[in-house]
Amino acid sequence: MTFSLLPESEQGAVPSLYDPARMSQRAMTAHMVQAVWRTETGWEAPEMMPYGRISLEPTASVLHYATESFEGMKVYRGYDKKLRLFRPWLNCQRLAKSNARVCLPQFDQESLLKIIASYLAIECPRWLPEPGSNLYVRPTMIGSGSALGIQRPPEALFFLFGALFPQSTGKPSPGIKLLASDPEHIRAWPGGFGSAKVGASYGPAMVAQAKARENDCSQTLWLFGSNKLVTEAGASNFFVVWRRKDSDVVELVTSSLDTDIILDGITRRSILELARARLSADSIEANMPTLTPLEVHERPFTIDEILEAHAERRLIECFVSGTAMFVAPVSTIKYADQIVAFPMTVTEDGQKTTVSKYASILKSWLEDIMYGRENHEWAYVIDEK
Amino acid sequence: MTFSLLPESEQGAVPSLYDPARMSQRAMTAHMVQAVWRTETGWEAPEMMPYGRISLEPTASVLHYATESFEGMKVYRGYDKKLRLFRPWLNCQRLAKSNARVCLPQFDQESLLKIIASYLAIECPRWLPEPGSNLYVRPTMIGSGSALGIQRPPEALFFLFGALFPQSTGKPSPGIKLLASDPEHIRAWPGGFGSAKVGASYGPAMVAQAKARENDCSQTLWLFGSNKLVTEAGASNFFVVWRRKDSDVVELVTSSLDTDIILDGITRRSILELARARLSADSIEANMPTLTPLEVHERPFTIDEILEAHAERRLIECFVSGTAMFVAPVSTIKYADQIVAFPMTVTEDGQKTTVSKYASILKSWLEDIMYGRENHEWAYVIDEK
Repeated sequence: MTFSLLPESEQGAVPSLYDPARMSQRAMTAHMVQAVWRTETGWEAPEMMPYGRISLEPTASVLHYATESFEGMKVYRGYDKKLRLFRPWLNCQRLAKSNARVCLPQFDQESLLKIIASYLAIECPRWLPEPGSNLYVRPTMIGSGSALGIQRPPEALFFLFGALFPQSTGKPSPGIKLLASDPEHIRAWPGGFGSAKVGASYGPAMVAQAKARENDCSQTLWLFGSNKLVTEAGASNFFVVWRRKDSDVVELVTSSLDTDIILDGITRRSILELARARLSADSIEANMPTLTPLEVHERPFTIDEILEAHAERRLIECFVSGTAMFVAPVSTIKYADQIVAFPMTVTEDGQKTTVSKYASILKSWLEDIMYGRENHEWAYVIDEK
Repeated sequence: MTFSLLPESEQGAVPSLYDPARMSQRAMTAHMVQAVWRTETGWEAPEMMPYGRISLEPTASVLHYATESFEGMKVYRGYDKKLRLFRPWLNCQRLAKSNARVCLPQFDQESLLKIIASYLAIECPRWLPEPGSNLYVRPTMIGSGSALGIQRPPEALFFLFGALFPQSTGKPSPGIKLLASDPEHIRAWPGGFGSAKVGASYGPAMVAQAKARENDCSQTLWLFGSNKLVTEAGASNFFVVWRRKDSDVVELVTSSLDTDIILDGITRRSILELARARLSADSIEANMPTLTPLEVHERPFTIDEILEAHAERRLIECFVSGTAMFVAPVSTIKYADQIVAFPMTVTEDGQKTTVSKYASILKSWLEDIMYGRENHEWAYVIDEK
């Protein structure tokens, strides 16, 4: 993989970590990668080029029929100065699955990872210098070919760019507020595509998202079916920690993947694996006396179970997980006329924060792997030469 | 509405009605219309410009989150040389509904119709000269603003162009073949967006469409739920005509709109209205002795009802309706290992055709209105000056 480069003088300034341009999510790095696929000739060699606009025929499939898929991933500048991706093999696998769901062509997964790594090896020395910070990376596939008939697009475009998102301030999170969805807005359904990272899983969810904001919440808690299964929160996976009814056992519960209505999140999967490996009764370390061991369950569960646990004072914490939100505690759930408010505490410097011990420890373990404080097979080190 | 024009010398040639360029659906007219909306400033004045590529930021909402909606309509050159749209008010209404479903801004419906008519008044003298032919028109709305966060796009683009699709040869249709969908591919769901013409209702349907083609069928017959309700066919509405069980009554049945999982098709609606007005026992003309009057029903019905009617020799015909397919008889339905084959006949010149008397008469009435052989309030005449 060899990519050509912009002269440094033609690149913009690197915004500081807490620059408002990052807050607006409109600060991109200087380059992007593009690769074209055509029915007749397959993939052309990917090219690195200055970040800039993409031009499409007005008849392009993606503009009418949502033939589009993407991945969200981050690249981390370790405290040891090394550059790392977190389980990028899973992003490549999932992109393949998403592409298949909307009739987009397949990209060889190993080549995809090489392209991402080559791109970041060039881009990150300039755009990600600060140890303990990260850059958001967006591999995208669109049906770029002209196709007014409803059929597989005859041409596709893969593109990839880096975005300078706001960085965590390190301050404790006040927690996010969730508004449970109405039956009139269902995010996903069995036989649909809610488990695929395709555009169609996102745009139609914005109406409920807007309603959440009108109700002083930041995200939707997506319910499904007549028994109101809890599936996802916004575009993140959702976890609950509670004490089992009539028992002392503490459970970590998240929706199972069996009906294909939730995203097989990489952070989700990592949380489950870490919780099983480090927080179960067999594995929990003796030096964590404040944490009761967890039983981990992936299963369908309902909003009524949360309300009941809350009423019976068994509810311990809820949190969401995803690449963008990372691991964020939930402070409030609004459902019809009921409100579940999680306990808050005030830190030494007067910040209000949601008590979320399990989310905190899981998050810190993940950060240790991402930023190289712990050597772990989940980290993929990029060679910057 | 005043639009500027290309000099005629800079426009391409008009392809003949049966030109292969039309078959590939890649022949567009010379101009398009664009209008930009921004959160802060609202709509800018629409502009007419040469047909050409649209350029978007790589972070444009539409490329990631399917914030897109469209309409499909046709403009007809009457046998009286006049230019007509067919019930365009309904397209404008539906676009508003679709926009709302994916957080796109609203376009004043009256202005929209004026823009479409002004555009066609300029484009059609050249591109639609032939009486009895039509031009496909595609009003489209996309979230063009940069928005990597999942939120209402801060900028939207409305665009409109004309496409020279193949024209009906006038030969009888051999009928279309439908493959019933598997439960693993469900097009739409109550609380979803199957009734909206948004991109998200189309791209994810292409996988089943590809499977239909592998099975020598051209479209998917979309089933829903454990009792296998028949909902749509491909991107068209679906109708069945059968004799009621243990009765002489002939029924025209199509799926009802109540659960919002099928498109409120304009051709569908027009067929229902015409059938009620002209084919019911009260209204049918005495000079149509070969047609038994119809009872019209909009209600959920199952694939098993079709199979049962077929086994009991009560099945008369099935057809699909939509702007692109117009009214097309169904020749075959494949469902699991069962095949429903409709009676075929051979015309004088040796063409095989599906017997579909009701579809034929309804289609001819619609054409009479579209091409001005019948004066009707559904026709909207465009003044070309």
